[in-house]
Amino acid sequence: MIELVGLDGDDTLWRNEEWFAEVHQAFHGLLDPYVPAGLDPVGALNEVERRNLELFGYGVKGFTLSMIETAIEVSGGRVSAGEIQRLIELGRTLLARPVELLDGVVETVDALRDAGFRLVIVTKGDLVHQETKVAGSGLADKFDGVEIVSEKDPPTYGRVLSRYGVAAERFVMVGNSVRSDVLPVLAVGARAVHIPSAVTWVHEIADHDGSVPTLASIRELPDWLAGNSPTSR
Amino acid sequence: MIELVGLDGDDTLWRNEEWFAEVHQAFHGLLDPYVPAGLDPVGALNEVERRNLELFGYGVKGFTLSMIETAIEVSGGRVSAGEIQRLIELGRTLLARPVELLDGVVETVDALRDAGFRLVIVTKGDLVHQETKVAGSGLADKFDGVEIVSEKDPPTYGRVLSRYGVAAERFVMVGNSVRSDVLPVLAVGARAVHIPSAVTWVHEIADHDGSVPTLASIRELPDWLAGNSPTSR
Repeated sequence: MIELVGLDGDDTLWRNEEWFAEVHQAFHGLLDPYVPAGLDPVGALNEVERRNLELFGYGVKGFTLSMIETAIEVSGGRVSAGEIQRLIELGRTLLARPVELLDGVVETVDALRDAGFRLVIVTKGDLVHQETKVAGSGLADKFDGVEIVSEKDPPTYGRVLSRYGVAAERFVMVGNSVRSDVLPVLAVGARAVHIPSAVTWVHEIADHDGSVPTLASIRELPDWLAGNSPTSR
Repeated sequence: MIELVGLDGDDTLWRNEEWFAEVHQAFHGLLDPYVPAGLDPVGALNEVERRNLELFGYGVKGFTLSMIETAIEVSGGRVSAGEIQRLIELGRTLLARPVELLDGVVETVDALRDAGFRLVIVTKGDLVHQETKVAGSGLADKFDGVEIVSEKDPPTYGRVLSRYGVAAERFVMVGNSVRSDVLPVLAVGARAVHIPSAVTWVHEIADHDGSVPTLASIRELPDWLAGNSPTSR
């Protein structure tokens, strides 16, 4: 019997990775004159991001610093101050971008509330930016809480369960990332539902063994949960 | 009767602003060849930080992006890619710097616990960096919770009180910033103790009317609270 439903933010409730894909394209174009044929600036950026993740964490600010570092590295220091300013502007565009909810989100969240589930957003990234997105989503009042976390690992989910006073078997996490929204949730004995997104960030790619419920759209979630609704007891 | 004691992190539990002062000095030295006589690069940086605060929030990553923007602006685009990389390294140094607790912190925290107070760290800045500092402080196990927040305003303190189930009159916040640790706490009807630090960040400077208890050292806190101890009821 599920009591608390956790919903991921980026690429589960609202668009995110598509905006990064646009910035990747701009980054590629900007660096193109500086890199030898065959070197992919975006591949180099992914490597720099990976190297910086522990110190910078997730989010646009660290991503922007990684873009600048990568630009300096792959250009052999030839990138200009004006081009670096352009990279900061790209980061600023990501931070200032209005929230666009994904299809079916509002109806689904309302249906889950009506069915009596407690709802929590569990999202990772820069604190201010995630708070801004939650506020801009218009969804905050429909949720019992918002947990902005630095990493989605088993201890993090353990803390969420303890904070909401819910046993693991009464929690389900719903999200697009197998690495962040599925595997660590299963590790604490809770359940997970995978809703793949159109684009998945390279650092989030992981597989599950096929036994995890996978939905084509968040619209299918109320039906999937119907047998687990608190009001159907 | 105080039940829950909130303690600020940066410059209340551990050194922080001193490290920024060192970076300011390095920033000044790096920009010196580029700026007209009379222009203070650090003053310009403060302005850029202020402009960026809403979008970037508090913390080292936003600060580093602001340093880069300022360097490009005040140098008229003449700063080199290598110098910008040096600014990123300065940011990285701040992020990687081991935590140094301020004098008397461990003894005071232990004394407050022994006196029966519940303790919570309330700190603002980048999520990952603040979590790393809490972990590096060795203090986490002594606290009942850690609240990393994006802004210390009255709604934030309201949420902390609600999360810990404490009435405003049973909460006291202790910190070095009048703007963040005192005024918004008084605004929600709770109490505040000001412990001024050696260096205060320009964006934290504010005054109180003199009626707020002000201690010269955190070591004075247990005595100040003695009349309010849960065990002295």
